Amino acid sequence: MTKGTVAVIGLGIMGGPMAANLVTAGYDVVGVNRSRPAVDKLVAAGGKAGASVAEAVAGADVVITMLPDSPDVEAVATGPDGVIANAAPGTVWIDCSTIRPDVATALAEQASAAGLRPLDAPVSGGEQGAVEGVLSIMVGGDAAVLEEVRPVLDAVGKTIVHVGPVGSGQTVKAANQLIVAGTIELVAEALVFLEAYDVDTTAAIEVLAGGLAGNRILDRKANSMAAREFTPGFRVDLHHKDLGIVTSAARAAGVAIPLGSHAAQLMQALRQLGHGDLDHSALLLLVEQLSGRKS
Amino acid sequence: MTKGTVAVIGLGIMGGPMAANLVTAGYDVVGVNRSRPAVDKLVAAGGKAGASVAEAVAGADVVITMLPDSPDVEAVATGPDGVIANAAPGTVWIDCSTIRPDVATALAEQASAAGLRPLDAPVSGGEQGAVEGVLSIMVGGDAAVLEEVRPVLDAVGKTIVHVGPVGSGQTVKAANQLIVAGTIELVAEALVFLEAYDVDTTAAIEVLAGGLAGNRILDRKANSMAAREFTPGFRVDLHHKDLGIVTSAARAAGVAIPLGSHAAQLMQALRQLGHGDLDHSALLLLVEQLSGRKS
Amino acid sequence: MTKGTVAVIGLGIMGGPMAANLVTAGYDVVGVNRSRPAVDKLVAAGGKAGASVAEAVAGADVVITMLPDSPDVEAVATGPDGVIANAAPGTVWIDCSTIRPDVATALAEQASAAGLRPLDAPVSGGEQGAVEGVLSIMVGGDAAVLEEVRPVLDAVGKTIVHVGPVGSGQTVKAANQLIVAGTIELVAEALVFLEAYDVDTTAAIEVLAGGLAGNRILDRKANSMAAREFTPGFRVDLHHKDLGIVTSAARAAGVAIPLGSHAAQLMQALRQLGHGDLDHSALLLLVEQLSGRKS
Amino acid sequence: MTKGTVAVIGLGIMGGPMAANLVTAGYDVVGVNRSRPAVDKLVAAGGKAGASVAEAVAGADVVITMLPDSPDVEAVATGPDGVIANAAPGTVWIDCSTIRPDVATALAEQASAAGLRPLDAPVSGGEQGAVEGVLSIMVGGDAAVLEEVRPVLDAVGKTIVHVGPVGSGQTVKAANQLIVAGTIELVAEALVFLEAYDVDTTAAIEVLAGGLAGNRILDRKANSMAAREFTPGFRVDLHHKDLGIVTSAARAAGVAIPLGSHAAQLMQALRQLGHGDLDHSALLLLVEQLSGRKS
Repeated sequence: MTKGTVAVIGLGIMGGPMAANLVTAGYDVVGVNRSRPAVDKLVAAGGKAGASVAEAVAGADVVITMLPDSPDVEAVATGPDGVIANAAPGTVWIDCSTIRPDVATALAEQASAAGLRPLDAPVSGGEQGAVEGVLSIMVGGDAAVLEEVRPVLDAVGKTIVHVGPVGSGQTVKAANQLIVAGTIELVAEALVFLEAYDVDTTAAIEVLAGGLAGNRILDRKANSMAAREFTPGFRVDLHHKDLGIVTSAARAAGVAIPLGSHAAQLMQALRQLGHGDLDHSALLLLVEQLSGRKS
Repeated sequence: MTKGTVAVIGLGIMGGPMAANLVTAGYDVVGVNRSRPAVDKLVAAGGKAGASVAEAVAGADVVITMLPDSPDVEAVATGPDGVIANAAPGTVWIDCSTIRPDVATALAEQASAAGLRPLDAPVSGGEQGAVEGVLSIMVGGDAAVLEEVRPVLDAVGKTIVHVGPVGSGQTVKAANQLIVAGTIELVAEALVFLEAYDVDTTAAIEVLAGGLAGNRILDRKANSMAAREFTPGFRVDLHHKDLGIVTSAARAAGVAIPLGSHAAQLMQALRQLGHGDLDHSALLLLVEQLSGRKS
Repeated sequence: MTKGTVAVIGLGIMGGPMAANLVTAGYDVVGVNRSRPAVDKLVAAGGKAGASVAEAVAGADVVITMLPDSPDVEAVATGPDGVIANAAPGTVWIDCSTIRPDVATALAEQASAAGLRPLDAPVSGGEQGAVEGVLSIMVGGDAAVLEEVRPVLDAVGKTIVHVGPVGSGQTVKAANQLIVAGTIELVAEALVFLEAYDVDTTAAIEVLAGGLAGNRILDRKANSMAAREFTPGFRVDLHHKDLGIVTSAARAAGVAIPLGSHAAQLMQALRQLGHGDLDHSALLLLVEQLSGRKS
Repeated sequence: MTKGTVAVIGLGIMGGPMAANLVTAGYDVVGVNRSRPAVDKLVAAGGKAGASVAEAVAGADVVITMLPDSPDVEAVATGPDGVIANAAPGTVWIDCSTIRPDVATALAEQASAAGLRPLDAPVSGGEQGAVEGVLSIMVGGDAAVLEEVRPVLDAVGKTIVHVGPVGSGQTVKAANQLIVAGTIELVAEALVFLEAYDVDTTAAIEVLAGGLAGNRILDRKANSMAAREFTPGFRVDLHHKDLGIVTSAARAAGVAIPLGSHAAQLMQALRQLGHGDLDHSALLLLVEQLSGRKS
């Protein structure tokens, strides 16, 4: 007997492996994606190709959207061909995209009015976390609805936490992106500093990771940063977009984010230097350049 | 049969528990400290009270110094009553203090000239790491000497890594302090941001810690920060001192540390506001004040 | 014979003295303001009270608006009672407010469609410049229209420059506000630094003003800053608003404004500390506080 | 009858024109410089070539030193061939170099002990100010001594102000350099921002200079910045050195200089990018690069 049908809209770097993990966990997964190869990959893994968003969500128990930005989610959610108009009443719509908290709240209101049960559930953990099914998922919305679909999220994530009402997931994700950008930059500054003093960075990364400076960037990215490998992963362009969200939201609330706004300037500069398609850990390239050490 | 005698000079927040762990590991430990209660505590734990630095190091196989700042180490190391003049040739002198790399190098040269075998071995992990004996130790100096005394360091640390020649330990520690200060500030900004949006910070900390934003500050300090508990731990005054080391060393090498130097300004401001004796995680108080949220 | 009728909408700190200078220059001035005392003051100076925006602009050759923010200008310009609906075709509408360049452009398009001739003409020079009629005015729009109304602007300003098509005035004003905020902060840092070293600030201000560091803030505000006199002048709240405009516009264009965005954080913090109603030169209070020198 | 003899040690970009102006004003000027062409130029202008520092100062009523950095002044002032050992008691020694306040104070003490009368008198105004004889001069030391030699300084400067005891001149100069670096950066950010929006920068510079944003950089350098002309003037390397002085002195006093320390990072980066020999207004190149607009 089936566990149920999950429609996944958006099969990119994150959505693709999430859909695959749902298949593995025993769900009937129907995928929709703008470009075809990602859909083929899902089909090869045991999923189905949705003919359209409308068709895919019409037959689903749970809809997951995983899209780049606020306008993408608005485009897929609204309109006659969208999620809200075509999903059956009672369907749980989990938006895993990282978007503006105010947009998330507005869309959730529209969805609720149409009888859907919306959750905003952005994720953290990067491509590796998506592939391994160990994402951190910060969930805003009705806690009871989360409990109902928790098995679905368990298939893609490891730390799944209810953080508050609708929109709260996006707020926590905004904070997450501030910390991640700042941490990458700090690790980049430390690495270039150590290189300038001819310290063995491999040994240094190991010992830094073991102490109070320890963080996930040191664990997962520092060695590839030291090797100047910046294949995404999570692209600079997207992190730049996310830092726009957190700086706007902090300004709206009057919250001081001196390092966060500074990191936003650096991420923007990295992008303007033409590195928008690299992994966000490429902040090292900017530090290295500003230190006159560019190869 | 004894494992050997270790003289520990400096029994403060870090040196005290380190000495106690050495006793537990089976070493004869002779402690010296400016104020008496810390010595009494070591004696109660099974150690001995050294009459003076000179006497303590004269009979030791290994000397560990754990002192606040460069001048303190210079004072204890040099002069007729100091470590260098009184330790027997061949003695391994492990300086676990965090001091300027150039001072570390100069003192190591003097010690080597006197026949001692010096290592610079600053630690990370904070009071908790010292108490639990799980410090990260970044060791500069002769790798063979490190291997010889590794059992001693194993008694106080968990991640013990040789990072390069004399002085390299301090360079890595400088990088460590940059990352730690910056990370605390990022977590502080995130927490105040989340509070401003009425998000449950306990849940948010859990989920942030599980994703790419995960770091040791979220693991160990974020909940006490959210509770406004700032008992040190590691004092703002000391971290301010350390940030002076890293900013000077980065400037000397021409390395750009935009976030690091920004964090140094914030740590200094926290100190000037009268919070020099609080735990460094009190950066939250500064963020909160700059956000107009001071209670 | 009259020089013509000018309707002035908004008789605040800036608009009030501008209207008075227009009266002095020989124009028939009709003023409209939300609160009555400012209108009475204009009448006492020889102007007239407009019954409403609609009535005032209906009989005017030139309409000047001088309002706090984008929504205020939108409210006064649009709708059945607004400037656009009620001014006669051919009327020159000069918006001297500081608003978002994109809003300025959109309103100018509506006005042009209705037959009006719009200019965006934000000013710099502060209350003192308004009173003395020596404002700097940065004008966007049709250069020929500017030449036609230049005598009107000559009555309130001294440096009146055409900087480009519609919206350009606001873009230059955004740049102006970036420079002003940053300069105030630099002067504040310098003054607190000099006070910390017990230097005579009056003498220092004189000599700083005479060299390459010389600027209008040193000329006009530094002595009152040193005396802790922060009566506006130009309020922190308004400058905070303006820095939101410039940071958004810079982000939209991908322009790096490291000091500008840093200054925006500081101005926001000053506001959050409860000083939104002080003169923007009160940034000194923030510097002093962060230096632990608050009295 | 002669006005007296002035020895000028250091005939570089600043010292050369200062010496020439002293000749014009009627002084007997003896110049000393490491490289010969600068001395020849002085001789051609009516001055004399000093055989050595010792010989030049031995016969002088007033000694002026104008050298790049603290060690240069120490080298020329001390030792058997230096100013202090060879100038006659009562000689007024005016150090116009920009050096560390603590070094200035220490050298002044030595000079006083040898019977000299020292003033620290750093200048602002750049090469143009030196050539035109309109420098701003910030003088620390005995006010009566300043009055005695004021005619000498009047020959090279326009705004000559006593700011306090020995060392105060350097403290004010440190503040000056903070303001100048920050102002250049602000103007650079504004110009790149305006270029990104296709605003006519010549017109914009004129109107910005007329309002509250007005400053000496807009007056003297903005048009050459817009034209990408960066012939020094005042070199990036030297301004980097000076920002090291002010950041150290601010840290020593616990003064917050958020924009100043940020500007120091940017000036260092500009230098590391290989632009140390350009005029400091080349900060525009850094802003342009970080904005992805580098040609």
